[in-house]
Formats: sequence, C-alpha cells, structure tokens
Amino acid sequence: MRHLLGTEQLSREHTLAILDTAQEMAAVGEREIKKLPALRGRTVVNLFFEDSTRTRISFEAAAKRLSADVINFSAKGSSVSKGESLKDTAQTLQAMGADAVVIRHWASGAPARLATSGWIDAAVINAGDGTHAHPTQALLDAFTMRAHWSKLQGIPSVGADLSGMRVLIAGDVLHSRVARSNVWLLRTLGAHVTLVAPPTLLPVGVEHWPCEVTYDLDAALDKGVDAVMMLRVQAERMNASFFPSTREYARRWGFDDARLARLDALDLKDTIIMHPGPMNRGLEISSAAADSPRSTVLAQVRNGVSVRMAALYLLLSGDLRETPTTPSVKDHS
Amino acid sequence: MRHLLGTEQLSREHTLAILDTAQEMAAVGEREIKKLPALRGRTVVNLFFEDSTRTRISFEAAAKRLSADVINFSAKGSSVSKGESLKDTAQTLQAMGADAVVIRHWASGAPARLATSGWIDAAVINAGDGTHAHPTQALLDAFTMRAHWSKLQGIPSVGADLSGMRVLIAGDVLHSRVARSNVWLLRTLGAHVTLVAPPTLLPVGVEHWPCEVTYDLDAALDKGVDAVMMLRVQAERMNASFFPSTREYARRWGFDDARLARLDALDLKDTIIMHPGPMNRGLEISSAAADSPRSTVLAQVRNGVSVRMAALYLLLSGDLRETPTTPSVKDHS
Amino acid sequence: MRHLLGTEQLSREHTLAILDTAQEMAAVGEREIKKLPALRGRTVVNLFFEDSTRTRISFEAAAKRLSADVINFSAKGSSVSKGESLKDTAQTLQAMGADAVVIRHWASGAPARLATSGWIDAAVINAGDGTHAHPTQALLDAFTMRAHWSKLQGIPSVGADLSGMRVLIAGDVLHSRVARSNVWLLRTLGAHVTLVAPPTLLPVGVEHWPCEVTYDLDAALDKGVDAVMMLRVQAERMNASFFPSTREYARRWGFDDARLARLDALDLKDTIIMHPGPMNRGLEISSAAADSPRSTVLAQVRNGVSVRMAALYLLLSGDLRETPTTPSVKDHS
Repeated sequence: MRHLLGTEQLSREHTLAILDTAQEMAAVGEREIKKLPALRGRTVVNLFFEDSTRTRISFEAAAKRLSADVINFSAKGSSVSKGESLKDTAQTLQAMGADAVVIRHWASGAPARLATSGWIDAAVINAGDGTHAHPTQALLDAFTMRAHWSKLQGIPSVGADLSGMRVLIAGDVLHSRVARSNVWLLRTLGAHVTLVAPPTLLPVGVEHWPCEVTYDLDAALDKGVDAVMMLRVQAERMNASFFPSTREYARRWGFDDARLARLDALDLKDTIIMHPGPMNRGLEISSAAADSPRSTVLAQVRNGVSVRMAALYLLLSGDLRETPTTPSVKDHS
Repeated sequence: MRHLLGTEQLSREHTLAILDTAQEMAAVGEREIKKLPALRGRTVVNLFFEDSTRTRISFEAAAKRLSADVINFSAKGSSVSKGESLKDTAQTLQAMGADAVVIRHWASGAPARLATSGWIDAAVINAGDGTHAHPTQALLDAFTMRAHWSKLQGIPSVGADLSGMRVLIAGDVLHSRVARSNVWLLRTLGAHVTLVAPPTLLPVGVEHWPCEVTYDLDAALDKGVDAVMMLRVQAERMNASFFPSTREYARRWGFDDARLARLDALDLKDTIIMHPGPMNRGLEISSAAADSPRSTVLAQVRNGVSVRMAALYLLLSGDLRETPTTPSVKDHS
Repeated sequence: MRHLLGTEQLSREHTLAILDTAQEMAAVGEREIKKLPALRGRTVVNLFFEDSTRTRISFEAAAKRLSADVINFSAKGSSVSKGESLKDTAQTLQAMGADAVVIRHWASGAPARLATSGWIDAAVINAGDGTHAHPTQALLDAFTMRAHWSKLQGIPSVGADLSGMRVLIAGDVLHSRVARSNVWLLRTLGAHVTLVAPPTLLPVGVEHWPCEVTYDLDAALDKGVDAVMMLRVQAERMNASFFPSTREYARRWGFDDARLARLDALDLKDTIIMHPGPMNRGLEISSAAADSPRSTVLAQVRNGVSVRMAALYLLLSGDLRETPTTPSVKDHS
C-alpha cells in the first residue's frame, strides 16, 4: 500500500497495522521526549482545496512530532485559483521534494486521481474528498472504539478488532464521508453497524452497504448499542427539502438529554457517544451529551494525531508496502 | 502562575522573573548559536481570532528560537467561522497536544475565560484581547525602559525596577489595551505614569487608575519626563466624534517635530520616545521623532521576542508556578 | 554581494558560484539524509506582498532543508494593509531577528529599495518585483539549461557556462520579469538569446537589450534553437488591445503540437522546451509539448529548490561577500 485513499479497499492487515502503530505513537506522546526523529528530512505537504483548520492542524502536529518538515498549501490565492490543473500542482509539489501529499478536496475522487494517475511518487493521504471518504477519521474512530471495546472485554487492544461491537451512526449520512468511511472500516473490523437517518438524508444505494439502515433513533437505541456516533449537520450543504426544521431535526435525530437519560434507563452504562467535530451543540448533540463521561469527542481528537502519525510513518517508511497479502494479525502486534 | 493574562494581577516577583529571564534570552540571540533546545517537542499554538501579523510573528520567532513546534490557527475559514464555541476550539487544540495557547481575540476577557474555565491545562498567553490587555506588550515596554533607566542610573538591570522613572503615555487611551497593561505594570515597577489624551479618548473610570491624567501634552512634557509612549491611533475604531480631524489630532496630541525640538530645549537629553507599532507616521508620531536616536521603536520589537521567549519558557517549564508568594527579588537574578 | 536583487548586475563569478553551489545542494537531496544543518538558528522571512504559493513554497522548502526557521508574512491582513510603510515593515522583521528577507512585491524596485536604503542588515532576495526582475527564476532556468548543454557537449557542468547555446524566449515579454532576468543572465553566461513576441507585448527600449527580437516564432525555430522558453500569458494583466484572441495567440505564439512536430522535422532532437509555470495549457503551450520528453518544466521546479538553497546559503554564510572581483571560474568549482 503506497497511499491511503479510503477504507473500502483497506485490508484487515493494513488496518490493524495502522491501529497498532498508532498505539505506539500515542505512548510516545506520554513520555518526556515527545518528538521522534523518524521522518527527519522528509517533507509533508498539506494540500487543501477546502478549508479545514482542524484536520490540517492534526496532520501538521502529527508530521512535526515525527520531525518532518511541513509545508501548508492552501489552494486559495495560489496558482490553482489561476486555473492550474491538479496534475500540474501535484507534479510541482513532488518536484519540490514532497514525500507525502495530504490532500483535502471538494471533489470526490480527487485524491484517488492524484495517486493512481502515475503523476507522482509521493504518498497520497486522503484528508477528506467531497462526500466520498475520510479514511483517517474512520481510523481514529476505530482506534477510539477499540480502546474502549478491548478494555471492556479485558483483552489487550493491540491486534484486537471490534468483533461483536454494536455501532450506531446517526444523522446526515447523505453528505457524510465520515459515515461512508466508517461503515467500511467497521465492517472490516467485525463490528455490527446500524445507520439512522431521516429518509431524505440517506444516499441512493445505501441498501448495498454492509450495514443496517433505519429511521428511528429511539428504536435503534432500545435494541442495545455500544457506541453511538452522531454526524455533524452540515448546514452549508443543506436546504429546506432535507428536513422540516432544526428543532424538528434535534428532536428526532439529535442526541439530546432525553436520549442521554434513555441510555441510563436501558442500563447501557458502557455505551460511548462519539462525534467527529466540530459539533453543533443543541442540534445533532446536546451539551450534556457532548460533555458527559460517555463522550469520546476529545479522545477522538487526541487519537487523530496518533493515527495520522502512524499513517505518515507507515507510508513513508514503506512498511505497509512490504506487508504480505495474508499475514496473521499477530505479525503486527 | 500558570497563565499570562494581564498585568493588573501580575506580581512584582513574577514581573521581575520574566524581565530577568528575557534578559538572558536576549543574550542568547547575540551568540553564535541562536537556538535553545529548551522547548523541544513542545507545541505552541497561535490562536488568532483577529489579524495581527506582527504579534503572531514575534511569538512564532520566540517559540522557534526555543525549538518548540509552532502551529498557526487563524479563526478565519476555520470551524470557528462555522460557529464552533471557544470551549470546543480550545479543548480540540489541547487534545491535539498544545502545551501553550497564544490567543488574540477581539473580545475583552476571552483569554481569561479560556484559562480559568477549567477547559484546558495548556498555558494560556494573552496576545491582546479587545480593549482589555496586552501583557507581553507591556512587559516588552518595561524591558525597554528598564534597560534605559538602569543604564542611566549606573546600576545592573537584572533585578532592577523603574522606581522614580517618569513615563508619559499619550494618545488614544480609550481603545488601547497597550495603555491599560502599561499603567498597571509600571505601577508595579514603581514608575510614575501620566496619561495624556483628548477627553473623548479617555475611558470611563480612568480616575481610578494608578496614574495621573491630563489633556495637555506640552504642559506634561514641560514637567519633565523620562519616557514618552505614543499610542497608535486606530482609525478603524474611530469615528468623527472622537476628535475634529487628523490634522488637529497630530497638532495637539501627536509627537511632532516641534515637540521633538522641545525635548532638547527642555534639556531632557535622555528622554526616550516609544511606540508599540505599527506607526501612523505624521499622525501620532512624526518621521523625525520615529527615526531619531531617542526612538526605541525597533528596540521594543527586538525585546518583544526576548520577553515572549521568557514568558513561554517560564510558563512551560513551570518555573513561575513554583515561585513562592513572597520571595526576595534576588532569587530571580 | 549581500543581496540578490536582479541579474543585470550579477557578475559572472557570482552567477557561477550560485550555479555550482546549487549543484552541490541538488546532490544532497539525493542522499539518505536530506537536511543540512548549515543555517540552523537562522531565520528566513518570506515577505509576500503578492500571492505566489509556488515561489513561497520553493523558498520555504529550500530554507527548511538548510535547517533554517521560516516565517511566512503575507501582507494581506497585516499592518501593511493598515498603511505601514515598507521601511517600518522591514525594520520590524529585522528587529525580530530575520537573517534573510525573501520579498515578493507588486512594485518594481521594492526589493532594491529595501536592500540599498540602509534600513536593514538582513540579506534581501528578490522573489519577483512587478515587471522588473525574478533572479532566482533566471538562475534556475540557467541551471536547467547548463545541465542539458554541458551534457550535450560532454563536459562537466561545474564551472561551465552557456557559450554557444541558442535560446528562444517567446510570449508576453512586456509583462515578464522572467524574460528580463533571463536575458541578462544568459548574456552573462554567453548564450545567444532571441525574443519572440507580438509587437504589442514587447516593452519600450527592448532594442537596447542584449538579444535579438522578432515577431515570427516559426521563422525563429527554423534558424535552429537549443532551448525554447515559453512565457506565461498573464491574463490578469492583459486587455483586448494586446492581441486579438486567445485562439489567435495560441496559433501564432503558442508552442502547439504543430511546432512540437516542427522541432522533429527540423532535426532539432536535443532542443528542450521550458516554462516557468504555472502553465496555461492550450494557450502558450500545448499539453503534448508540456508533457513531452523535451519538456524541462518539472526539472525547473526541482532545480528551483537547489538554486534557492544555494542563494540563501551563500548570502547568509557571507561566501559571496568574500568573493574577489576577478577570480578565475575554477575557484568555485
């Protein structure tokens, strides 16, 4: 594997290699010396065609903690805005010495095009493309779930998957690359996924995804669940036809205080509440839920840096390339 | 002390500790090797809700000279502009590993809210909030005055304060966090401060500040003064009701060529002229004054890096936290 | 030489010193450890009054590969936009510790003013000013041509010049600082230069430049040429009076597929095609030409980093200052 483009084709072996390496990276952060020399002299370019300060900063922190040089390239005001093609931009970055290109793009498929066109040798990491994929987000979510799930089961998390875990992903699935990437990755890791969304916010073809689909959040909770992931309502991509009102949305598909109480009533004391951020407090998640001990929102952010360190390290050191196709999981532990 | 939020509550001990450490930092800059490993592996985030290239660059240079990793976060185009709360932004930055957050905010009190809310453990440094405070500016001003004053008195500057120094601060006091922060810090250091401003540019309650207030710049100069600090006229915050015209302002409250000559006539040969920058040449200060040997404008900029290195170092190394409440000044020398 | 402002006054000795050093820098990039400690602790400020992501990134990569600290200063939203003078901005940067200022400015002559005014001691590198000069672009072009030309002649490139090489520079000469800087540098290196442009896109006084001038691209190709450099059409600086239409421009002055075939027909098998980027594919250059084996577009980008490393290194280490006025070329080899 030379690039990280999505989770649909990401093998179980590579997934576990990334999660296990991320766990080592997280341990480094807790030591006195927080910086590793692993990528010293390597250049990571953040190529952002769409603003995303959070994701850019997370990758920047990850790369710097590995001693890489980071160059931020925002497409605004650049030659891109003068009409330069993606190909020319990419080749230019590589010619300047980029070893990895972290790309965020408004167009679904742009990172894959960059990686598979033969234009560049640099490792390409998809940092979110259109409504398509956001693989490092799904990996950090899986990392967060695994830490919780393995602890519950009393097993070491290294090498572990999510067999038997019940995950609910709720909200605007239609516009969410996070949901898509999570569904595929969670399938790979053996979790059972249920999507909950208003009918107008489900994509065409969702019936072919490896998960259950329902419209009723309360009924889904009642069946029992180990993790609830609330999706961000992206107001900028919405119009009135998607749902009646924000108040109505919050009542039917938001994780509000009533549903927080419901988890207790259902005796689901270990269920965690996840959100990729930034949160619309009061819309898809209430403040009480976001700040409750069940919330993993900040753990997800923290794990994001570790997962991105792992992805950068494995892609640039070539370790994932050498991974045989059918290793045992233990090889990575 | 875990944070640097303002100068009003900054103790004499902490003030001198910062100034003395800044002096050591300044000495480092003059050696062959300009970089110290002190904050290697630590991450400093510049969180700017308001543009301020000068201040951002000064902090960035300071952090890098201490080998810290620097991440710039401009609120524009970030999740902040999508409505994310200050709390969520702050917690996100900390989860990503920020050890210090340097915050510039248009709202007075935002840095204090960040620091005292319990949201984060990172050290918070106020890089200017609304019309409230700009403590590192006041500290660099004090550093600049101390270098001058102690030299005049033939005493070592380390450990020294500004007892007996007469400081005039002139101009738009109403909108100036620089003036506020200076008044309190200079009081702590024993200087005698006089504010000179048009009546319309003085804040309500200024009579309770520890300084004199007057409207007549020439009369104030005639009394004798060791440092004159001209404030920037912030045209963007002004409207016609504040003063009749820029020409009139320059004539009555600007440090023009006539006043530069007046200092000579008054035999005030050692009086320095200060300005926090950027200057409106021809408005609050004439070019001849700005470029005269009396001007400390560039020394202030240079000292800004040393003072910010000191603040970052002391807050992140925890040295200020361990300072007992009533040490002798000598302890820090 | 303390600054790099243009190529008109750049001596043959300094030119060769930069090209030879760039060659060593290029060799470093190919080794395992890509980073040199040469400028550790030095601060390079990219002071950009005009957007140019490519040039900024190239300098940033160059400086980081030499272990310098890089601070990016975009004039937008800075005190510059509040009316601060170039002088005050420059002095501020130097006071903050800038060892080199890389300046891009919309006004011809701004870098020279910065360097010769006595305002600052920092080394000034012109990264493009108005329609005046872009010396590092000309140097990277010369580097690229020298690699090709010396190989063709079977001689080592270190110490070599471009004697006998025939270079065609075609397109919008009027607005092109690249063309200007190339004409002078190529003269210094002994190449024979021909400019080809529509009469409306030639500057007044071009008859005094050390080159030939013609309007007919095909006729110029027919005479034989070793390198063809196509200039970018800067649509933003154009209006209808310059040429009839983009289609007409492409047909008469663009390097299209027909002209690519013509090179083969003329048996000019070693002629290279150059472009400073970003390219307007289909306007001044066809995609087939841009992507042909003759194209040096990506080599130019790659060489840009090496040339900028060399310029930064030589200016900051003072090696160019010590160069005697009339050394033999061998001294630098």
